[in-house]
Amino acid sequence: MTVSMKREEIMAAKENFKLEEILSGIRPVDSQWLEKARERTAQLVMPARALGRLHEISERLCGIQKTLRPAVQRKAILVMAGDHGVVAEGVSAYPQEVTGAMIQTFLSGGAGINSISRYVGADVWVVDMGIIPELDPAAMDGGERLLVRKVARGTANFVQGPAMSRPEAEQAILTGFRTATALLRQGVELLGTGDMGIGNTTPSAAVGAVLTGTDLDRMVGKGTGVDNEGLRRKQDVVRRGIQRNRPDRKDGLDVLCKVGGFEIGGIAGSILAAALHGRPVVIDGFISTAGALVAHALCPTVADYLFAGHCSEELGHRAMLQYLQLDPILDLGMRLGEGTGAALAMSIVEAAVRVFKEVLTFEEAGVAGKEA
Amino acid sequence: MTVSMKREEIMAAKENFKLEEILSGIRPVDSQWLEKARERTAQLVMPARALGRLHEISERLCGIQKTLRPAVQRKAILVMAGDHGVVAEGVSAYPQEVTGAMIQTFLSGGAGINSISRYVGADVWVVDMGIIPELDPAAMDGGERLLVRKVARGTANFVQGPAMSRPEAEQAILTGFRTATALLRQGVELLGTGDMGIGNTTPSAAVGAVLTGTDLDRMVGKGTGVDNEGLRRKQDVVRRGIQRNRPDRKDGLDVLCKVGGFEIGGIAGSILAAALHGRPVVIDGFISTAGALVAHALCPTVADYLFAGHCSEELGHRAMLQYLQLDPILDLGMRLGEGTGAALAMSIVEAAVRVFKEVLTFEEAGVAGKEA
Repeated sequence: MTVSMKREEIMAAKENFKLEEILSGIRPVDSQWLEKARERTAQLVMPARALGRLHEISERLCGIQKTLRPAVQRKAILVMAGDHGVVAEGVSAYPQEVTGAMIQTFLSGGAGINSISRYVGADVWVVDMGIIPELDPAAMDGGERLLVRKVARGTANFVQGPAMSRPEAEQAILTGFRTATALLRQGVELLGTGDMGIGNTTPSAAVGAVLTGTDLDRMVGKGTGVDNEGLRRKQDVVRRGIQRNRPDRKDGLDVLCKVGGFEIGGIAGSILAAALHGRPVVIDGFISTAGALVAHALCPTVADYLFAGHCSEELGHRAMLQYLQLDPILDLGMRLGEGTGAALAMSIVEAAVRVFKEVLTFEEAGVAGKEA
Repeated sequence: MTVSMKREEIMAAKENFKLEEILSGIRPVDSQWLEKARERTAQLVMPARALGRLHEISERLCGIQKTLRPAVQRKAILVMAGDHGVVAEGVSAYPQEVTGAMIQTFLSGGAGINSISRYVGADVWVVDMGIIPELDPAAMDGGERLLVRKVARGTANFVQGPAMSRPEAEQAILTGFRTATALLRQGVELLGTGDMGIGNTTPSAAVGAVLTGTDLDRMVGKGTGVDNEGLRRKQDVVRRGIQRNRPDRKDGLDVLCKVGGFEIGGIAGSILAAALHGRPVVIDGFISTAGALVAHALCPTVADYLFAGHCSEELGHRAMLQYLQLDPILDLGMRLGEGTGAALAMSIVEAAVRVFKEVLTFEEAGVAGKEA
């Protein structure tokens, strides 16, 4: 089910949130509702916990939504887009113009994320967090799904200094927070994160290496497909960026500002919004999980609200997920981004909820239980 | 999308198929269509093969259906049910009456398979391949979805002799074949297999051990939840059954007859039907894969048409899948059977097809490709 919501309504949301208030307002998931949900699962007419992960998913949704009737029909994918100064170092196999061109493809409905989102019944919203071109939603086919909230026209090249200023990093997070909050307030029950930005596996690898403490040779991967020489160059770029900027891994905002990206900040902010407002959020792959790491560095409790949609083929993703103690729902060798892994996993999340709500109990079905 | 089809029409299908003719009629998947499908994937507006397994799935469907417009909207799950004489040995945690009671639950729509099938848009058909009770579809709520095609009222206890006669084994396979053929002729585009039968992990483990050559301590698992003592007893029962009957692993029919079950034969037959008629079939977990092993022993080419819905939590399932060289789509710690893993995986299969058919090419999207 998709949500009828106008671009203007989302853009109009102007509440002032302060980062400190957001972080201090996030509460752990309710363990009493988790316990009640486990009791309900135990009554379903099947051997104990025979649907494995589906039970864990539905129970956590009960805890998050504080109900035994969790609802995930109304879904939205927020595709956060940004450009990256570090592409000047030759870290991507694609030209930078592709960021803007792909946004047009998202708006026209012709990309992978559109196809999968239509199938699972999720709305796709594209947020210009800081791409280089100036897009005019009013002049574009499908522009009613584009939210222009640029922090700046691309980040700076982080091998030469910070990717962005500290106020820009905070602005990126608050922009993501505000956008997601508007969607949640309008009835979105299940949020998914996505990304677009040529070069963005490079800052994501830097964020992942710093925040998880993982070696670069296990964190920097081939992205959209650089060759072996490109991979060595990319590792070197990440190493130099970290050495030059010395991000403080205890300070998520500092890491985002030194070696991150605007879309990574937007994703972090949307995760904070889901956690503060008590809604589940399915994260996509490598870039989304870099955003989750930033959110987690700011407030570890956000992990209670996170579902890892899939494990990406991108080298460092598994290490990121392990650090966050997230078990991915799918593992299909995907590495597209856009939110495709999050959207696809929403089908499993919805199936889990339906089983939880629809399956009869042993008593209702009149079926004998396990023999004593 | 579900298929409007009457029970009477399926029951009325009386064509005479001979097993030898079926086996000799099955052809490998068309490699030219596979190649054409790969060419189409390469044009999609995303990095090369960035959706991993989704591409493999959609391309194989193109090969199976001999088209670049594969269709999987019309789906059906065939839940094959049977009872097992070997439960007299104390191999199950549940009483035998549960087989019939669960069939009533399937027909009423209240079981796990119903919930997941509704979500993915699959019809559920229950086939009484040989349960002990005599159910009257006309007198049952939801009976229009029950096909009574009993081979016998439960198998014999295979620790004392063959589970069934060789003609019964052949009848089980041909019954599964005929039932699936009727569904496919009426327009089902994607078939899923499922099972119900208290005790049926025991014959499935025996079939798996014989046909894959796997040790019993890696093939016999806890089923619906026997304790450690029950597990030792179950291993002993399987060992004695194999020793007593000496099934010939080169002869799938002999293995089915000596240590199998009627629903396992029905599943094998439905897989042969999909392969002969050139349609894809998603298999569920441990019992369905035992059926697939029987079909594969009769005709190895069936593997071309098989999709492994998931990897079950049941101990020996991974070894079975490895033997068949099938990579499971999902791995969610499920072990319910009924067809739940097959039905859930259908959502991934459909998403794969939609991506293949809907996503624009680089040219259509006007997006620049990889830099030279």
